[in-house]
Amino acid sequence: MKNILFNFISKYVSLNEEEKNVLLSLDIFRSVKKGTILLKEGQKSKESYFVLKGCLRTYYVLEGEEKTTAFYTEMDALTPPCVINKNPSEYYVSCIEDSILLISNSDMEEEINSKFPKFDIMCRMLSEELLAKERIDFDEFKTSSPEQRYLNLIQKRPDLIQRVPQHQLASYLGIKPQSLSRLRARIMEKDKG
Amino acid sequence: MKNILFNFISKYVSLNEEEKNVLLSLDIFRSVKKGTILLKEGQKSKESYFVLKGCLRTYYVLEGEEKTTAFYTEMDALTPPCVINKNPSEYYVSCIEDSILLISNSDMEEEINSKFPKFDIMCRMLSEELLAKERIDFDEFKTSSPEQRYLNLIQKRPDLIQRVPQHQLASYLGIKPQSLSRLRARIMEKDKG
Repeated sequence: MKNILFNFISKYVSLNEEEKNVLLSLDIFRSVKKGTILLKEGQKSKESYFVLKGCLRTYYVLEGEEKTTAFYTEMDALTPPCVINKNPSEYYVSCIEDSILLISNSDMEEEINSKFPKFDIMCRMLSEELLAKERIDFDEFKTSSPEQRYLNLIQKRPDLIQRVPQHQLASYLGIKPQSLSRLRARIMEKDKG
Repeated sequence: MKNILFNFISKYVSLNEEEKNVLLSLDIFRSVKKGTILLKEGQKSKESYFVLKGCLRTYYVLEGEEKTTAFYTEMDALTPPCVINKNPSEYYVSCIEDSILLISNSDMEEEINSKFPKFDIMCRMLSEELLAKERIDFDEFKTSSPEQRYLNLIQKRPDLIQRVPQHQLASYLGIKPQSLSRLRARIMEKDKG
């Protein structure tokens, strides 16, 4: 697992042995069971997650109903907004598969970054990249029909369609589970034709 | 205008005189007329914008129709995704008011950040904050009805409702202009009652 991490980091900065050892000494690798809730609505937190293996889901509970807003899988990083704005969390983060995560906290990050500016550079590059990605996803969501959203998902994250329960996927796409079933049937019909 | 900039920066890092002078020497302040298109679909760019005064709009042209996805006003920063992923832009950026902007480019940023790590820290903090904000906005959009979206906008960015043409605002909220008119009428009726 540590090699997966170092490969990922090498896309941004090159770490020397000392820096690699500092990272490992932080003891931030965690095995988390499917079903674990990592963050609850109303809770304050300083924790960020990086998925080495598995899948996290973020969701809101609105009028008693779960609304899924995102899935984080291998090599995805999640810093919940509540960590940045220091307010209680507005949403839940749960593990929907047995997962291996890096869990860091913002105090630790600050300390490391002040000692090793390279980590600061990496965090800046990663945040900029995530921001660009988030903006593209948001724009796509705004400018697409439900059918286009589903087709985009098939293209961009085909694994999700297999890994994630259908009612969560429907919620994520902003449609009702029945509409998702109809939409899938329509697309399969087209593919046959 | 330079004091507005330094006030903004002081929320993140404190600059000494030398660092302030470096920023000023970059000659990045620009006056831009209403109607100017800063970035076109298909164009490559290294430019980021910071709004000191005025309003920028991002929009896509899909099947001949403009779809507005965001407005950037005072103290908002915009790095178009194409600057980060180095692809041709998928959208347009236009100035919808006479504006005063900071326009920086990524080569210049890299040079400055390598000389003054403090700027790197500031960029990291700003990106993290923008990412958190973008995620909250996206989640809100996904989990809200058009009426709730409009009410959120009144609360969070009341100025936009006055500054922006109604058809652009409707597009931004993901609804038809007629629906926005009806929605506004309904809300005004409620307020009276």
